[in-house]
Amino acid sequence: MTAGIYAVRDGLDTLVLEKNVVAGQISTADRVENYPGIPSISGMELMQKFKVHAENTGVNIQNADVSAVRAESDRKVVITDEGEFEALAVIVATGANPKRLGVPGENQFMTKGVSYCATCDGPFYGGQEVIVVGGGDSAITDALILSDIASKVYVVHRRDELRACSVLQKRAFGKGNITFIWDTVVQEIKGEELVDKVILKNVKTDELTEMKIDGVFIYVGISPNTSMVDVEKTDAGFIVTDDRMESSVSGIFAAGDCRRTSMWQVVTAVSDGAVAAISAHEYITSVKYD
Amino acid sequence: MTAGIYAVRDGLDTLVLEKNVVAGQISTADRVENYPGIPSISGMELMQKFKVHAENTGVNIQNADVSAVRAESDRKVVITDEGEFEALAVIVATGANPKRLGVPGENQFMTKGVSYCATCDGPFYGGQEVIVVGGGDSAITDALILSDIASKVYVVHRRDELRACSVLQKRAFGKGNITFIWDTVVQEIKGEELVDKVILKNVKTDELTEMKIDGVFIYVGISPNTSMVDVEKTDAGFIVTDDRMESSVSGIFAAGDCRRTSMWQVVTAVSDGAVAAISAHEYITSVKYD
Repeated sequence: MTAGIYAVRDGLDTLVLEKNVVAGQISTADRVENYPGIPSISGMELMQKFKVHAENTGVNIQNADVSAVRAESDRKVVITDEGEFEALAVIVATGANPKRLGVPGENQFMTKGVSYCATCDGPFYGGQEVIVVGGGDSAITDALILSDIASKVYVVHRRDELRACSVLQKRAFGKGNITFIWDTVVQEIKGEELVDKVILKNVKTDELTEMKIDGVFIYVGISPNTSMVDVEKTDAGFIVTDDRMESSVSGIFAAGDCRRTSMWQVVTAVSDGAVAAISAHEYITSVKYD
Repeated sequence: MTAGIYAVRDGLDTLVLEKNVVAGQISTADRVENYPGIPSISGMELMQKFKVHAENTGVNIQNADVSAVRAESDRKVVITDEGEFEALAVIVATGANPKRLGVPGENQFMTKGVSYCATCDGPFYGGQEVIVVGGGDSAITDALILSDIASKVYVVHRRDELRACSVLQKRAFGKGNITFIWDTVVQEIKGEELVDKVILKNVKTDELTEMKIDGVFIYVGISPNTSMVDVEKTDAGFIVTDDRMESSVSGIFAAGDCRRTSMWQVVTAVSDGAVAAISAHEYITSVKYD
């Protein structure tokens, strides 16, 4: 959305292709309190504000699912389920999705007790007991959300301390119904129609425990949506860019969670988008006038 | 402000020292329409929102004018007109100011036809005629931006050739609606409520010309407020950082317009601040626990 706003303001003929109704992984966030100027807002509302802002600026947003971006020298061809589009420059801002744990039962029970988003699915677990898997900001943020809905939240973490920022840690340690299970991983998720238990494994002792549980919320990292574009990427699939946000292919730029960066924050993604749009303008000018 | 918000959320004991009542060069901007989520707001109001957000998050903001930052191994001593402060890490976010032309009317019409940033203010000049003053990279970069928005761009330069790199020159010469006025300076900016004309002076013939114009964009240099800190800087005084925002001195970070960067935008400064705070937290943790 930010790349769109900056591109239109720079006089570029701009089209944003979006496959979802409301864009952005942040739209699943219950509360965003670190986007300066807007002290507290749901992720969904923030993304709606971005969209309205972009539309008011004159950004053309079209619903389409992009399957490939092809660079044919200066021409870039974008292949989608709504047909092909041609452009001089493409900014890839496709974000990232939560990673799977990769244990038996995870796929089978997805939406039947396995979730990656407390805001989306938490309300189904009123008065029940859930596990949160992970120790980073996302895990603890969502553990806090769940602790106000579920009767009991167990945070299962493979290490003996959290990666989450200390503010979140302090809040979580202060919650009476959050219990931490350290040095432990989920080995299997089981049930009939719905999840009813997990097998936990202590990574120090290899001891296995069966635990009755109603829901499993998983926060073990994110994987970028970059399969549609053939540029240099990290082993994990994040697009490598220079500080102008240009990828290894001239005229293809990347912004936000899909690129290699140290932070997955709204503010850094927004900044990336602005830089990518300005760089795309420079690139287009060079292609047209050099 | 963003560095403050992120530092507090990360559990750091955080003090923001600010010499002005309302911080930031952006507070002089009449309209900000490229901060996503807030479609249109005065720079002053936006900075007030940032300040309230920071205060609500628990950031302690104190009025003081910093004259020096001294690094004494892990300790950093900040010397101000309100006494000395000690910290483990310092984030320099002192901004920069565009250099003034220093001609009659320039101050009077600031934000009323006089601007120092096409990315910020260009969109207000759709279909109008503007002057760009200067011949360096910034002047020509912004002339190119303006040429896709305004109907006509005049580049007024005191010499008979540009300082800007040849790529930019070539692009600008290729644009049908950019005209160069060589050997010429702006002698005066005039108007009623808004700018409506300039007096130009040919420096070779001393001939004066009155010219009707809607906007004057001035690029005669930008000077960062970095004299208080002794770290590696560019020739122009911008602080050199790595992509964690750390300067050449461990524990001294820089964010925003005062650091060497390609864009001077609210969104990039906000992102810098977030990254600098996270990096400062990492640095402090390493100093305290490693």
